[in-house]
Amino acid sequence: MTARPVLGILGGGQLAQMMALAAIPLGIQCHVYDPDPVAPARLCAIHHCAAYDDTAALVRFAEAVDVITYEFENIPLSCVSFLNAHKPIMPGISALQVCQDRLTEKTFARSLGFATAPFVDLVPTLSSTDALHAVGAPAILKTRRMGYDGKGQQIVQNAEELDRARATYGTLELILEGIVPFLHEVSIISVRAPDGTTVRYPLIQNTHRHGILRTSIAPAPCHTAALESLADQIASTVLDAVGYVGVLTVECFVVAAPGGSTLVINEFAPRVHNSGHWSIEGATHSQFDYHVRAVMGLRIDPPELRGWSALCNLIGDEPADNDIPVGVAVHRYHKTPRPGRKVGHLTITTTDHATLQHTIDACSELTGIRIP
Amino acid sequence: MTARPVLGILGGGQLAQMMALAAIPLGIQCHVYDPDPVAPARLCAIHHCAAYDDTAALVRFAEAVDVITYEFENIPLSCVSFLNAHKPIMPGISALQVCQDRLTEKTFARSLGFATAPFVDLVPTLSSTDALHAVGAPAILKTRRMGYDGKGQQIVQNAEELDRARATYGTLELILEGIVPFLHEVSIISVRAPDGTTVRYPLIQNTHRHGILRTSIAPAPCHTAALESLADQIASTVLDAVGYVGVLTVECFVVAAPGGSTLVINEFAPRVHNSGHWSIEGATHSQFDYHVRAVMGLRIDPPELRGWSALCNLIGDEPADNDIPVGVAVHRYHKTPRPGRKVGHLTITTTDHATLQHTIDACSELTGIRIP
Repeated sequence: MTARPVLGILGGGQLAQMMALAAIPLGIQCHVYDPDPVAPARLCAIHHCAAYDDTAALVRFAEAVDVITYEFENIPLSCVSFLNAHKPIMPGISALQVCQDRLTEKTFARSLGFATAPFVDLVPTLSSTDALHAVGAPAILKTRRMGYDGKGQQIVQNAEELDRARATYGTLELILEGIVPFLHEVSIISVRAPDGTTVRYPLIQNTHRHGILRTSIAPAPCHTAALESLADQIASTVLDAVGYVGVLTVECFVVAAPGGSTLVINEFAPRVHNSGHWSIEGATHSQFDYHVRAVMGLRIDPPELRGWSALCNLIGDEPADNDIPVGVAVHRYHKTPRPGRKVGHLTITTTDHATLQHTIDACSELTGIRIP
Repeated sequence: MTARPVLGILGGGQLAQMMALAAIPLGIQCHVYDPDPVAPARLCAIHHCAAYDDTAALVRFAEAVDVITYEFENIPLSCVSFLNAHKPIMPGISALQVCQDRLTEKTFARSLGFATAPFVDLVPTLSSTDALHAVGAPAILKTRRMGYDGKGQQIVQNAEELDRARATYGTLELILEGIVPFLHEVSIISVRAPDGTTVRYPLIQNTHRHGILRTSIAPAPCHTAALESLADQIASTVLDAVGYVGVLTVECFVVAAPGGSTLVINEFAPRVHNSGHWSIEGATHSQFDYHVRAVMGLRIDPPELRGWSALCNLIGDEPADNDIPVGVAVHRYHKTPRPGRKVGHLTITTTDHATLQHTIDACSELTGIRIP
């Protein structure tokens, strides 16, 4: 057997599963590292089932692979640094550091000249009144680290509420963000190869409910040439700034601006993203294919889209196959359903936007039935 | 964890690998049974590595799965019969019996009213002169069982050559077939669900070299409404005749006929087929998705094609990623390259036939370089 490259993935959830499914046809086998014995990616990868601080297991993992990547950005930095001494980690640690901390992330975005929500570092010495004065009320209190799917954040209306909310977080570092009056939510999913080649999908338009992504549509119905051009600028500037390798997702708000609309950066995800799952069916290269190619040093070509695509998340429950509309693809993650949990998704691909919207409506009736 | 259905596959080659890759998003996990410790499907399925006559291992395999299917028709009937006592086997044993024997296969096709090449059962008492008289010379001598990729067959010009050739086969049962003066080679890939629902892809046009499939194009450039209509008839008649469940491939010759052209059945493959690999990218449902759906009792919807598609086999060697034309998908099977061995394939999907042919030409230069 010719020695084939091996990709290690920290985390063995659905993102790792779909990455491993994309890697196999490229001739690449994946190892995943996840303490969960029923991690979804175990079905198509070698599973290293151990804790993130089990250094012996981490060494065995690092020795088994050529390159290490990750499916979530909240992986302990100590774990990543330890591994980085053994094998290359992509995207690099600097990208991870930026994305793990909402304060660093927003400061970084601003330093590159892009708009973000107003924010303040909510250090203990800063009064709630002053903080709210800086960003405007109501505002969103967030932990600086470890938030996802709307977890670790809450809306506060005034200084009293903010005082009470801050008290519940103990010594956790916090950030207070102003609320952006957005027209739409979009994401920019781009990929950069080690040689600097960068490509991206058109803007993707997202709908959330209860803080969880429900649907994504690509290309974004709200997109304009000006927004796409700004998205190009954001993607290439951010990727180049950190010498990024792999898929990067930038979540943005579309806000009204003089003479049209513009993009305000909400957050970065240094990884494949839920809003890009439609690309498995909807594009010549999926985001998983791209990420694997980039981190393994394979060539990156621009995507061609197969018409309009939409993603509908399956949250808390899975529909029976017979209930899924004709022509809609299903992806089941092999996870135990529970309220609010992403257990799969549906992908719709059509050649016209009217059919797309109609099918999204039909799919929406199937999805998230058990959402609390 | 909700109990999820498990599919067992006899054989763990690339067909099983691609079947398992298609099964995972459907919420189905696969077990594969293959004595080869580096069987390609081990990457995305639980691998039972044991001989086909190891009854203890076969029982363990049967107990681990809900339904059993296979990726090749030359599996020992004793093995299949043994398993069938434990779990349902689909496609059923009667289909397998028909397809394992070229004599039974052709007799079956004729009994349904379809054309085949002329053939005779080359029993020891039949003289070579009489046999050649029956089918015409030159003719093709084939073993009745266990042939694939042109193995177990040879062309004979006259009775002396046939005598010599027969002697080399010892007691193996043989068939002599007349040579069909074909215009094109095509395949009909269809799928039937347990409830009788049947769908198929348009005719696929195939090119062989040295008895091995090199390229397939879908829809077949040679197709006509009359040929598609005859293909419908062949697929539904054959599938219904044996109460078939799963994907069936019928390889046919397109031959000149009064008023146009017609189809002559060459052989059946009771499984997914090399000439259908383009469907992973080229259709809304791949042949692997269809086969898994059918044998697991899921709904079968008609395929929609994404324009023109072509498959180019990678034989004996694999091209570097950088040498693959832009927009062409690669599937590497994780097999050790050796001359004449299928180690992967490329898929081209385009919206126009001119680009398709141009890209096939570019791909052909990459493929099969080491073919003897």
